[in-house]
Amino acid sequence: MNIVIAPDSFKESLTALEVALAIKTGFERIFPQAEYHLAPMADGGEGSVQSLVDATQSYLQKTAVIAPLANQVEATWGLSGDKQTAFIEMAAASGLHLVPPEQRNPLITTSYGTGELIKAALSLGVKKIILGIGGSATNDAGVGMLQALGIRFLNVEQKEIGFGGEQLASLAYIDMTGLDPRLAQVEIEVACDVNNPLCGEQGASAIFGPQKGATPEMVKKLDSALAHFAQVVENQLGKNIAHHAGAGAAGGMGAGLLLLPNVTLKSGVQIIIEATALKEKIQQADLVITGEGRMDSQSVAEKTPIGVAKLAKQFNKPVIAIVGSLREDYPIVYQHGIDAVFPIIRQLTSLEILLQQGHDNLISTAENIARTIRLGLAY
Amino acid sequence: MNIVIAPDSFKESLTALEVALAIKTGFERIFPQAEYHLAPMADGGEGSVQSLVDATQSYLQKTAVIAPLANQVEATWGLSGDKQTAFIEMAAASGLHLVPPEQRNPLITTSYGTGELIKAALSLGVKKIILGIGGSATNDAGVGMLQALGIRFLNVEQKEIGFGGEQLASLAYIDMTGLDPRLAQVEIEVACDVNNPLCGEQGASAIFGPQKGATPEMVKKLDSALAHFAQVVENQLGKNIAHHAGAGAAGGMGAGLLLLPNVTLKSGVQIIIEATALKEKIQQADLVITGEGRMDSQSVAEKTPIGVAKLAKQFNKPVIAIVGSLREDYPIVYQHGIDAVFPIIRQLTSLEILLQQGHDNLISTAENIARTIRLGLAY
Repeated sequence: MNIVIAPDSFKESLTALEVALAIKTGFERIFPQAEYHLAPMADGGEGSVQSLVDATQSYLQKTAVIAPLANQVEATWGLSGDKQTAFIEMAAASGLHLVPPEQRNPLITTSYGTGELIKAALSLGVKKIILGIGGSATNDAGVGMLQALGIRFLNVEQKEIGFGGEQLASLAYIDMTGLDPRLAQVEIEVACDVNNPLCGEQGASAIFGPQKGATPEMVKKLDSALAHFAQVVENQLGKNIAHHAGAGAAGGMGAGLLLLPNVTLKSGVQIIIEATALKEKIQQADLVITGEGRMDSQSVAEKTPIGVAKLAKQFNKPVIAIVGSLREDYPIVYQHGIDAVFPIIRQLTSLEILLQQGHDNLISTAENIARTIRLGLAY
Repeated sequence: MNIVIAPDSFKESLTALEVALAIKTGFERIFPQAEYHLAPMADGGEGSVQSLVDATQSYLQKTAVIAPLANQVEATWGLSGDKQTAFIEMAAASGLHLVPPEQRNPLITTSYGTGELIKAALSLGVKKIILGIGGSATNDAGVGMLQALGIRFLNVEQKEIGFGGEQLASLAYIDMTGLDPRLAQVEIEVACDVNNPLCGEQGASAIFGPQKGATPEMVKKLDSALAHFAQVVENQLGKNIAHHAGAGAAGGMGAGLLLLPNVTLKSGVQIIIEATALKEKIQQADLVITGEGRMDSQSVAEKTPIGVAKLAKQFNKPVIAIVGSLREDYPIVYQHGIDAVFPIIRQLTSLEILLQQGHDNLISTAENIARTIRLGLAY
């Protein structure tokens, strides 16, 4: 039996690799001779770099960069074993968790550090960059990131505008001449699972600004600054970025990235599936096991297990999910490729203890699924 | 596919029949054509009458009897469809739940009402009585029950002793002449899962007295009263009842029952298995599903699922358990015939809500087990 184990992480409890290993441990007790292929997954959000590194035998890199408030931070990213691909999470350099709650202010936070990580990857000669843009503290349309890569954003006095979303309002001129020429040789895949436009009621500032510390006043200011930025881009570069699906992701980072060559915005889980060559693994499988911390009706929207399940169903492979918990509204997952799903909770306890027991509960649940399969009760 | 569903009740949440029906509902979603045989089980304790009535299409009977404190209570018992067998729980007439906590006093509580239920069954002409003796409030060696059936217990003045364990100390003479003659034609099977002797450190008074309200002083008094009773029985009837395994069950009820003809003390779950003709059902089965409210290492000691599993293994049938919760020490059940076990908890919540969700969670778990079986992944 050939078994592919491709779960997401269990947030706050286990990495995707730890989940995969625990499931393998449980199955191995019953099927020691089976062939196991572990593919720790992610959806482009938090933990994606770790999963990619774990799935592809890659290396973790550390680079000192500018944090959202312009202080320094050491950011971790991943480099594939063949050194051809970099895995970068925007949150590592420009994440909300890097800003103390009382200092959160998207008028001034910059995405500059993310640009520095891209530069660090370019310096190592990668051919491809996979960039996850979830969890950012910024609302600067990725301008900070673009500044780090050599684009100059000037005001009417031909002076460089400063950091932060508010500064975009004074943008008059974009000078692309300094853009790092190595970017022309590199493909950037952006894991982007939101479809928000840059501006307006569904735009970056209105929808994501408040969680980054924006007051209603700030939202208004930021929204109009982003609109101004898009107008300048359209006038000078002839690119309409404002209405691109996903332009509003990560404080407009989705829009800003479109100023670079060879950028595509894609579903996070699809990017990870490709980067981990999951398709090739699944084609050989007799059974695919996936999982996530919590499964519910939202799971069908571009989340990891459904991404894995849909791929598996292209090849008619059975899919079992093992999950931390299961909401009442979960049964819709059956229509999206999940054949059966088992929660791992064995008894009522506190959340803290439950998170500690996650590893053991996973092993136990996997073992009992394997035991059920071993019964050979085909109908 | 022929599926036998033979669970215990989930205490405080669902009767065994409700559990069986929920499991069937979940399986039917996937295997609508399968043949289902429901056999609600019990272990001779609380809920056994209900399970037997549910399993054998029997009738519930109600009889007014004397409660432990000599007040009246309406007690429920069961009569099989063919009217040949009565199902009686001692607790229905003489249970601890019938005595308010502040009035619990095994010096005075009587098992008389249980004898009245036996008489009621005799009056309907049954050939067999199945008697569960768990949960009693009494420590009277079943003397109250024997009084109800016509045996006279006299003191030195040839006067009837009163109700309660303390009265046994004044016992001088046992008059068997009035014993209901119909008992000679009836077989009484007593569901008894404890092996305690009548007296001493492991005896009825020391082990079970305190939970019935006995202080250390009372335990001493009761223990010596029971010893005196056994001595009188041995002297006058030539029966050594004190050391019979189970003599100490239900405040000495195990010992007192031995004064009746055709009484056997047996494992509760074995009695229920026989009464429900489970063996015949299992012989035809492709799969046996059992379950209980909580499974742990104690489950291997004469509890329902293991009793069911052992029987199934005599015929090499696969056994899956579905349980309310699963303690860390559960894996020993694998050595006692359980092939796989699944807890039904889907997410952390309060115990109250969890008990309410039991029905839905059971259906969901059963469905996912059936979905796993349908994959046909025989190895």
